[in-house]
Amino acid sequence: MTKTILLNQRPVGTPTLSDFKLISTEEELQPQEGEMILETTYISVDPYLRGRMSDAKSYIPPFELGKPITSGVVAKVVDSKNDQFKEGEFVSGMLEWKTSQISTGEGLLKIDGNKAPLSAYLGILGMTGLTAYLGLTQIGKPKAGETLVVSGAAGAVGSVVGQIGKILGLKVVGIAGTDEKVAMLESDFGFDVAINYNSTEDMTAALKKACPNGIDIYFDNVGGPISDAVLFNINRFARMIICGAISVYNNTELPKSISVQPFLIKNSALMQGFIVSNYADKFPEAIEQLATWLAEGKLSYTETIVEGFESTPQAFLDLFKGKNKGKMIVKA
Amino acid sequence: MTKTILLNQRPVGTPTLSDFKLISTEEELQPQEGEMILETTYISVDPYLRGRMSDAKSYIPPFELGKPITSGVVAKVVDSKNDQFKEGEFVSGMLEWKTSQISTGEGLLKIDGNKAPLSAYLGILGMTGLTAYLGLTQIGKPKAGETLVVSGAAGAVGSVVGQIGKILGLKVVGIAGTDEKVAMLESDFGFDVAINYNSTEDMTAALKKACPNGIDIYFDNVGGPISDAVLFNINRFARMIICGAISVYNNTELPKSISVQPFLIKNSALMQGFIVSNYADKFPEAIEQLATWLAEGKLSYTETIVEGFESTPQAFLDLFKGKNKGKMIVKA
Repeated sequence: MTKTILLNQRPVGTPTLSDFKLISTEEELQPQEGEMILETTYISVDPYLRGRMSDAKSYIPPFELGKPITSGVVAKVVDSKNDQFKEGEFVSGMLEWKTSQISTGEGLLKIDGNKAPLSAYLGILGMTGLTAYLGLTQIGKPKAGETLVVSGAAGAVGSVVGQIGKILGLKVVGIAGTDEKVAMLESDFGFDVAINYNSTEDMTAALKKACPNGIDIYFDNVGGPISDAVLFNINRFARMIICGAISVYNNTELPKSISVQPFLIKNSALMQGFIVSNYADKFPEAIEQLATWLAEGKLSYTETIVEGFESTPQAFLDLFKGKNKGKMIVKA
Repeated sequence: MTKTILLNQRPVGTPTLSDFKLISTEEELQPQEGEMILETTYISVDPYLRGRMSDAKSYIPPFELGKPITSGVVAKVVDSKNDQFKEGEFVSGMLEWKTSQISTGEGLLKIDGNKAPLSAYLGILGMTGLTAYLGLTQIGKPKAGETLVVSGAAGAVGSVVGQIGKILGLKVVGIAGTDEKVAMLESDFGFDVAINYNSTEDMTAALKKACPNGIDIYFDNVGGPISDAVLFNINRFARMIICGAISVYNNTELPKSISVQPFLIKNSALMQGFIVSNYADKFPEAIEQLATWLAEGKLSYTETIVEGFESTPQAFLDLFKGKNKGKMIVKA
């Protein structure tokens, strides 16, 4: 029996469980020559999937109604008529939310569970790590001694950004939403300072205090009022990596904020939207660098692993309530 | 007798005549060894001066209360004890709003009225032309066939940006505030299309119609709602040169607009504040290129010349009412 999770309806505002539908099919999968059967091991749930659930124009096409959702998945080859992949091997790549599926192997990467835990290939050695590393280095162009602020700092990407910032010699300030996350950033991930935005009345003042030399680089995962507060503290030639805007993804009206343009002019500052897939040519060197730092014990990561394929929609919804620490993954 | 225009008080919102003060002094100027007396010929009035009249932190220090305003000035050497400058020569540079003043020549450029009209050195061969050329090429990185939108297109910088865009093979769309300016952009400056934002109800739709292939480069002189409308029409990898925000310079409250961050993410787009002085190392090659195009008849420019040193404050105020066509200059 194969279970599949479909997009049942397009979410309006915050997604709900009824936007998804779980179906079961009994038909047996039959791989043709060059194909294989994959059994899902881990599923990555990510805030950006919210964008694909709407039908607005974006950098990747929207999910189709009544069709399976796709995201990063780690799967095991259980039956193969493809010379490149052997039974028992593991792969990662963009796959459907199904307990098992047929694949030609196109776009999939073979992964080695002996080098790192399999789930790491959805996180620190996958899109999460690549997003953190390439966003920070390609747009942020960090120089040792500069000050980096990371929003959504306890999230999958944010916690890696901060650690890479420390490796590269930056002063690193993180912003997160609970005291527990703040404590984790400072004790487990080596952030110099972390700020709980939920218990801070004046974020502009708090950032000013945490960044006495001003902000040179801002890795933005959230948008909204937190990013507004950052603008008041940026330095000349500041670089702002706009990687996510989770605070406004579920807005049904166009979000308003302070006009950024006067801040950009005053500071000759840069703001650039970052999508990791634009930097695919740099993936090999980036993965090598991340794997090296991981092996040297310079990078650590946190996962929130939810059990059970059926829990995938709820795990996705929980992202918007900040219930995850680090990368949110479902174990199928 | 020397006349001087001082900053009398810091403007609140839109500047008024009472923010300035004209004084006359009788004392005769006596140049020391290495100095010279300059007699003001032309004064440049520019929107950015508004920023220096406030005491907010910015990229250049604010004007001091009770002290002369400074801006770009063309002046004649009338008495010189400096070997580098002879009587009868002309110079341009940042000088005080005075009918005559003493200078060491530091930071001044000798200019040649036979090569181009003297006032051109405050415009197309001065900061105006440099801003247009370097902003468009250094941040905009134009490729022939792309679509460029210019706001404040009938202004000093905007009209040059559009012409350079045409020279570089772009489709050029201008936005201005009167039918007369729109006609001038299309007939005198070669813009492909110009839009009057004052008589256009839906700027987003008008831009969509004018730019059927979307917007690749936006040269922003105005900020505010016009820039919001541009965001809805940008292409993937769009570059937005944030050069001015005249629509919000006089706001006493922080201006709000739609959040730009989601647009930047969706389109992997870039927004960068541009200040021409950051590119001083590129001035010589830029002036050479502009002078060549000017000599070849590929660039034309418009000036609004106001007569009389005493009219300088009013000429400055008129910038914010859009009374100028092209570069606004006072003939002293």
